[in-house]
Amino acid sequence: MKKFLLLLGLGLLNLRADDGYRLWLRYDRIENGSYKTAAIGTLQHIILQTSSGTDAPIVASAGNELRDGLAGLLGITPTITVARRPFAKDTNEFDGDGYSLRTGHELPPGTLVISSDRDVGVLYGAFDLLRRIQTGQSLGQLAVTSTPKVQRRLLNHWDDLNRHVERGYAGFSLWEWFYLPEIRNPRYRDYARACASIGINGTVLTNVNANAQILTPAYLVRVAALADEFRPYGVRVYLAARFSAPIEIGGLKTADPLDPAVAAWWKAKVDEIYRYVPDFGGFIVKANSEGQPGPQDYKRTHADGANMLADAVAPHGGIIMWRAFVYSPDNVDDRAKQAQTEFQPLDGKFRDNVVVQIKNGPIDFMPREPFSPLFGHMPKTRLALELQVTQEYLGQSTQLAYLAPMWKEVLDADTYAKGPGSTVARVIDGSLRGQSPSVIAGVANVGTDRNWTGHLLAQANWYAFGRLAWDHSLTAEAIAREWTRQTFGSDPVVGQTINRMLLGSRETVVNYSMPLGLHHIMAEGNHYGPGPWVDKLARADWTSVYYHKADEKGLGFDRTATGSNALAQYAPELQKLWGDPATCPENLLLWFHHVSWDHKMKSGRTLWDELCLRYQQGVDEVRALQREWDSLKSRLDGELFTQVQQRLVRQELDARDWRDACLLYFQQFAKRPFPAGVEPAAHPLATYQAIRLRNMPGHR
Amino acid sequence: MKKFLLLLGLGLLNLRADDGYRLWLRYDRIENGSYKTAAIGTLQHIILQTSSGTDAPIVASAGNELRDGLAGLLGITPTITVARRPFAKDTNEFDGDGYSLRTGHELPPGTLVISSDRDVGVLYGAFDLLRRIQTGQSLGQLAVTSTPKVQRRLLNHWDDLNRHVERGYAGFSLWEWFYLPEIRNPRYRDYARACASIGINGTVLTNVNANAQILTPAYLVRVAALADEFRPYGVRVYLAARFSAPIEIGGLKTADPLDPAVAAWWKAKVDEIYRYVPDFGGFIVKANSEGQPGPQDYKRTHADGANMLADAVAPHGGIIMWRAFVYSPDNVDDRAKQAQTEFQPLDGKFRDNVVVQIKNGPIDFMPREPFSPLFGHMPKTRLALELQVTQEYLGQSTQLAYLAPMWKEVLDADTYAKGPGSTVARVIDGSLRGQSPSVIAGVANVGTDRNWTGHLLAQANWYAFGRLAWDHSLTAEAIAREWTRQTFGSDPVVGQTINRMLLGSRETVVNYSMPLGLHHIMAEGNHYGPGPWVDKLARADWTSVYYHKADEKGLGFDRTATGSNALAQYAPELQKLWGDPATCPENLLLWFHHVSWDHKMKSGRTLWDELCLRYQQGVDEVRALQREWDSLKSRLDGELFTQVQQRLVRQELDARDWRDACLLYFQQFAKRPFPAGVEPAAHPLATYQAIRLRNMPGHR
Repeated sequence: MKKFLLLLGLGLLNLRADDGYRLWLRYDRIENGSYKTAAIGTLQHIILQTSSGTDAPIVASAGNELRDGLAGLLGITPTITVARRPFAKDTNEFDGDGYSLRTGHELPPGTLVISSDRDVGVLYGAFDLLRRIQTGQSLGQLAVTSTPKVQRRLLNHWDDLNRHVERGYAGFSLWEWFYLPEIRNPRYRDYARACASIGINGTVLTNVNANAQILTPAYLVRVAALADEFRPYGVRVYLAARFSAPIEIGGLKTADPLDPAVAAWWKAKVDEIYRYVPDFGGFIVKANSEGQPGPQDYKRTHADGANMLADAVAPHGGIIMWRAFVYSPDNVDDRAKQAQTEFQPLDGKFRDNVVVQIKNGPIDFMPREPFSPLFGHMPKTRLALELQVTQEYLGQSTQLAYLAPMWKEVLDADTYAKGPGSTVARVIDGSLRGQSPSVIAGVANVGTDRNWTGHLLAQANWYAFGRLAWDHSLTAEAIAREWTRQTFGSDPVVGQTINRMLLGSRETVVNYSMPLGLHHIMAEGNHYGPGPWVDKLARADWTSVYYHKADEKGLGFDRTATGSNALAQYAPELQKLWGDPATCPENLLLWFHHVSWDHKMKSGRTLWDELCLRYQQGVDEVRALQREWDSLKSRLDGELFTQVQQRLVRQELDARDWRDACLLYFQQFAKRPFPAGVEPAAHPLATYQAIRLRNMPGHR
Repeated sequence: MKKFLLLLGLGLLNLRADDGYRLWLRYDRIENGSYKTAAIGTLQHIILQTSSGTDAPIVASAGNELRDGLAGLLGITPTITVARRPFAKDTNEFDGDGYSLRTGHELPPGTLVISSDRDVGVLYGAFDLLRRIQTGQSLGQLAVTSTPKVQRRLLNHWDDLNRHVERGYAGFSLWEWFYLPEIRNPRYRDYARACASIGINGTVLTNVNANAQILTPAYLVRVAALADEFRPYGVRVYLAARFSAPIEIGGLKTADPLDPAVAAWWKAKVDEIYRYVPDFGGFIVKANSEGQPGPQDYKRTHADGANMLADAVAPHGGIIMWRAFVYSPDNVDDRAKQAQTEFQPLDGKFRDNVVVQIKNGPIDFMPREPFSPLFGHMPKTRLALELQVTQEYLGQSTQLAYLAPMWKEVLDADTYAKGPGSTVARVIDGSLRGQSPSVIAGVANVGTDRNWTGHLLAQANWYAFGRLAWDHSLTAEAIAREWTRQTFGSDPVVGQTINRMLLGSRETVVNYSMPLGLHHIMAEGNHYGPGPWVDKLARADWTSVYYHKADEKGLGFDRTATGSNALAQYAPELQKLWGDPATCPENLLLWFHHVSWDHKMKSGRTLWDELCLRYQQGVDEVRALQREWDSLKSRLDGELFTQVQQRLVRQELDARDWRDACLLYFQQFAKRPFPAGVEPAAHPLATYQAIRLRNMPGHR
């Protein structure tokens, strides 16, 4: 035998590498000994109090979660008992899904009480307790109450029945329709657990670009199976209704909402659905929008359509979420104005169980938009806010964009509808006008990818949506801190670094893609890369040139009185502020104004120079994100580290493409050189224009 | 505080439930103390000997796998060293990818040597050693050599670039094209590990219904990334070539294989591919079949097309796998005859690096077919066997069908091409005529499902394919025993029960779907449920009635001289055996004969009664499978148990549908009652005929 040539390296394959599947529900043993000792002393005996007592499976979920969580986090198995809640509801301690957590005070030592009017409130309280332990908060002398500000906190899945997810970037649909009802992926329960842990209490299973087949018995029996899986976690099921279903699966010749046969068909169909799913939540409807059928096909109004469906679900306690995302195929007015033009006249005409669901901005989930003006109107209508958790226009699942700061912008935006302080949050939570039901919806970013969201750090968006739906007064910073601590543990360097990365990340995407109020200048169709040159599509308002209006003079969409006057849809206070380029926030400047290339910005630079430097800044910020993440290498699980590191490499390439493509394109109009500090483009403009991305996730 | 009403159950959610992801590569600590002690004594020092020494990454993979495996199984970390193999290759101890495992004899105590001419052989030896430990085999005085019988052991993925998998029933394609090359799913490595552990050394990444885009630089850079991930496990990458690619992505006006510009285009393209992937394996081509382009579009032969591509890859050592799955759009002769009609005249006309790849049977992966007659002809051509690991016609991923017994039928089938003993196995492994390269291909059954194969027990098919590709003399029983022990551990009750379930399972599917030689009577398009009534499609040979030919007299396809005479394509010995209904095996009776309803079967029953009872037997056998599995409940991990239990529930429903639909349909012709013992159908025939399965996995 010859002599040995090589001693192999000692590194073991880490067979138990973390893959992100557990989300923020990690119950690894906490290391802080004194905290652990104190917590164990407080948690000898846990009492779950609920006055209903009827939904025992949900209470069992709470008990199971506490047992697993406490065994993992603290290594203890306290006694857990269930008691009937002793006091009357009129104590007003908390409402509905709310709960209290109590220790100390009048309670025996070592006892913690979670109390709610509803079983699901006890479940929420259990998750709250676990979150407090995960994040190292004291459990002594607790007297906490928490009540959600919005009643229906829903995820909207744009999932097709073939498991394609429209605008889904984390694999494919979680719902395995062919295998249901007999074969039930354990992931259904884990999905519901994750939802419940952040207060989400409903899920629309199917795409708003709807398929009537979901309403047939072959699918309803499967919907019922999913509802059964979710029910122990307090998550109710909703469906998208295809308005033409009476024709497509009902054999009728019309779907006219005022036709009695149509109304009768829907009533019978709804009754059938409730036989399958007794706690069915209701329908969402995208009608007369982007080719979807709707009441206008029969010269009826949105209210006619919504009310007909509302009457069908009302006896069962269901609701109709009618989407306001409309822009007419005929109307050539500024698309930003059209939802309000179409819906405002219908104010007061909707049933009490109809909620008009409005996207945060007037166009379509751009990286930055002003809030939709509809929130400031329609005082007699219940209005819901639709946020997009999936990052359709913000780098999908390869780029980092923590969206809570964006959502806070719209929630905190003042409509002035009933004077100062009439924020969008107060419109949609019902507190401004006392309306009920209140609804907030997030278009889900989850799929079959092992880590649920594709980008590991995009889990923070799912988390933040749930937390803001529960309490929109939470700050983006506080939510990031919670999520990071739960997900990555107590290392303060890790926590501070990741929080810093999260909080600036959305603005970074804005900078390298659509800064200064630019919007809708992406490549055709896939909504991923740059395409400011897109100019010839079936509709002008699907192109990019429609929105940026670059010319030799300058850049931007004049939405003041000299232009489309979309500005007039906002309150006078905002018209004044936004109507003058001198006072308009620069991050909305090109949304509302066509501005000269030489316009002097607050920095003292010209618009052109500022624009160039913003794009460069976006690229630089991605590089800074890379450095920050790389600094954590020794502190993180190897697989989790690599997941994000690889995506940041891709993001830097993408950011450069955005910068180079947009600046080369706009330079044709500006006819000015790049200012110092901007890197030269890697390729000529034609190279970027020739890029054709194929087989894009989430895109048909 | 009121008194407690309920003590919650103590059951913990099993957060660490097994999900099947680890496949058969489970390295949990073995419990047999005396075995463990002996093994530890033998494995103090492991020496990896290889004479190439050039592919260090593969040797590192072997070392890593041994370290992980031995740490898990035995709790030890032996020293592992690499040595240059001392003896000359001409010792003929083993060939190529072969290896030896040695302990005792002249070696120092506690030393094990894994030796191979190639690094990959050392890796295979490492997996062999781990398998021996998993299955409790003695390691003392080892002197084992193992050489694969077939050189290229390939998986064929029918994966589209949009991640749909044609005939894929385990989720979606593993290849995340959009995210490559920067973002690399750790699953790529685990896939390659699993392949290497069973000797698979190549993978065709893309669907034979091919997309030319895969040959563009945008995709080749991604193919290279996958090749990089697989290379440390000795798995080479191949691609499906679209014959019309020179037109579609090359800008040529023709794809005529005799056009010099076309040949030059392919030569340049192949040179380009090898720049991305220096060890690229070659192309598979489906040409002039089911609408795919091919040389016949230019009045050239399959040989013309294959040879042109072969000349392009030859300088790089690549091969062309040219599929014989053809049936002419014009030829109205029995489809079972057409591949031979078309290919036999081309014998001797293919280049040495062309392999004609033939499906096991003459039709299309039916639950049972006789072997393809082409294997008995074409002596001057390299022939490959294409098996289908994915269960297109055998219940997809909801039904249990262990396929090794079916594959053994074809491997052991005697073509009589050079006299008795000229088995298909000896044709394709090159031993009958000394040809090289030898190739065996399995159409993969893996996808994004967490357990890789949808049905947990379908992992056994992936495993069995690899093991038979390495050594076709292994029995289906031995492979099942190996797999079950590795996957479910050493409990003999578990092992015996699951082995019994596996071994009968394919015949069960045959019984309730297509017994007695029936074939191709499935529902239109999806290839899942029953459809004996299917009679009007674009081609007659896509219908069911074409194949079963039920009439008032009887049932079955006369392929003797009085019928299509497909029988004449077989050796005289087989013609004699199969040509007489009295000697034809009953499991092929209706394949070769149209038989009277009153034909007396070996059981003494009429054909009709036998047919009915076979369908009933299939259902009964599924119920027996359910009982067997349920008996293991306390012995298995809860999640794994439930995965299979739910699928067996579905399988019983499906089996009843098959039985009822087929018997009610055939009863229209037989006009006889069901014999005693056959359950009445649950619904009238029209109910089964009205079933329309939608959004089926694996089906466009």
